[in-house]
Parts: sequence; structure tokens; C-alpha cells
Amino acid sequence: MMTATEQSTLTTPSDREIRVERIFNAPRDRVWRAFTDPKLVAQWWGRGNKLVIERMEVERGGHWRFVEHSAEGVHGFEGRFREVSPPERLVYTFEWDGMPAYVIIETTMFEDLGDGRTKLVNLSLFHTAAERDGMLNSGMEGGMNESYAALDRLLATLD
Amino acid sequence: MMTATEQSTLTTPSDREIRVERIFNAPRDRVWRAFTDPKLVAQWWGRGNKLVIERMEVERGGHWRFVEHSAEGVHGFEGRFREVSPPERLVYTFEWDGMPAYVIIETTMFEDLGDGRTKLVNLSLFHTAAERDGMLNSGMEGGMNESYAALDRLLATLD
Repeated sequence: MMTATEQSTLTTPSDREIRVERIFNAPRDRVWRAFTDPKLVAQWWGRGNKLVIERMEVERGGHWRFVEHSAEGVHGFEGRFREVSPPERLVYTFEWDGMPAYVIIETTMFEDLGDGRTKLVNLSLFHTAAERDGMLNSGMEGGMNESYAALDRLLATLD
Repeated sequence: MMTATEQSTLTTPSDREIRVERIFNAPRDRVWRAFTDPKLVAQWWGRGNKLVIERMEVERGGHWRFVEHSAEGVHGFEGRFREVSPPERLVYTFEWDGMPAYVIIETTMFEDLGDGRTKLVNLSLFHTAAERDGMLNSGMEGGMNESYAALDRLLATLD
């Protein structure tokens, strides 16, 4: 039975990785658009906070840079796309300005569940186990779930 | 006995790392300047080829981007500084446009040998062993030695 809010599942396949799975109640093309159209990304990526998309070139070699404005402050994030394979797979780097040049490789996979829902699988690869552990201890899971809840709300409004 | 051209030593401390040592016949402050002053970097980093320094902000969080113009073509390289500790240590990311979002962490250490010479130690950390092996098989050692020879020539002209 589907609940109103889906749960995300976080696992650690190796000491340098984090894997997250989350089901969204929307077809894959719609979820893909929410991840790759800057106007849509701005509405959910920053946990519901104001998000300025300074740069977002969704193509191999393209750069992205987002700035989140929250009650806790202003935080910049940036990276570059390694692979853009619609509507199945994105591979890109992720860096937070607060820890410059600590780079995570993010692989985001979109799986069509065939019943109008989509399973998102996100694999994060770090250079070191210490960096992976730092991320796990940063409160990332709470922030991620806030962003995914904002994405649930956005997806419900899209055609 | 010192030879006219010093040799670099390449080792692989782990399956995701490359370590290079190279002695330069110049004091540490001079070698540091050659790595951090854009006007000097332009004269040796690109193996003696034309090098356009599009961006070089030598500070924590700062970005760099160089474009090399050689007989084989135009190649862009970029990254961001994690640490700038004069005159001892630079830590920064390194990416080649040809493999976007494959990111190497470079740690460059400058050791004062006390006799007017400086030992450079460069440690490169890759996300995967396959990426490290790809770099080893790319002809990087030849290119690196051409750049270091150009650096030898530049250092001899500096005060």
C-alpha cells in the first residue's frame, strides 16, 4: 500500500559510498524533468528554501551552480555533468562551498516502475571513507528528505 | 652529483594514487611563485606550449582554468583550491575537459632542501583504480617531464 509520503532508504554499499532509494508517485519523464529543468529544480532542491540557479548546463561537460538561501545562511553548491542520458541516468560532481575541492560523484538513476511511479536510486562516491562519514554525520538525510518532500509536492502539480 | 636535468620519480603508493618527486635547482620561494603566479604558470605548465590562464584564484575555494594550445589541439583543464599554505603546500582538484567530472585531488608539497634546491612532491588521488590506471597509460609522465623541463628553464631566469 502506498503511503501519502514515501520513505527513503539509505544504505552504505562500501566505506566510500552512500546509496539512497526513494519512490515518487509520478511517471519517469516527469521526475526527469524535475531534475533537469532549472525552473523546476529551483522549486524543490533547496528543501523548499529559496534557491538561485546561477548556472545549469545539462549536458556532458556542462557546469551547474546553485545557491540556497535558508534561515541558517547562504550556501553555494556546484559541479559538472559527466553523463546526461534521458530519462534514465545523470552522473555529475557535487561540491559544497563550505568544503571546497571535496568532490562527490553522484549517479542518479530513474527507474520506471510501470505503474505510474518512479524509483530514484542515487549513489554517492567519495574520495575517502572519512569524507563519506562526514556527510553521514552532517544531517544530510534530514535535508534530503525535506527536499524529496518538496519534490513530492511539485510533482503533484505537473502534467 | 647534480645533473643538468633532474629526473622525476613516479611511484604508486596505493591503487588509487600516483606520487611524483622531482628536485628543482632553485629556492623554495621561487618554486612556490612559479606555481602560484599566473604569469609564471603560463610559461611552463603547458609543456612549453601556449597556455591561456582563463581563471586562477589562488585561495581556499578559488577556481582555476587553463587552456593549452598545442599542435595536437586545444585542451582545457580546471579545478578548485582546497588549501593554499605558502610556501609549503597546495591542495586542489584537477579535471581535463576531455573527461568531465572525473576529478583528481592533487596535493603539491614543496620541501626546502637547505642547499638552494627544492624537492617537489605531488600526490594524486583518484576516485577509482581504473581512473588512476587510465592516467598512467595516457602518456602523462612524458607530458609532466616536458612541463618540468620548461619549469627548470623558467626558474633559471628568476631572481
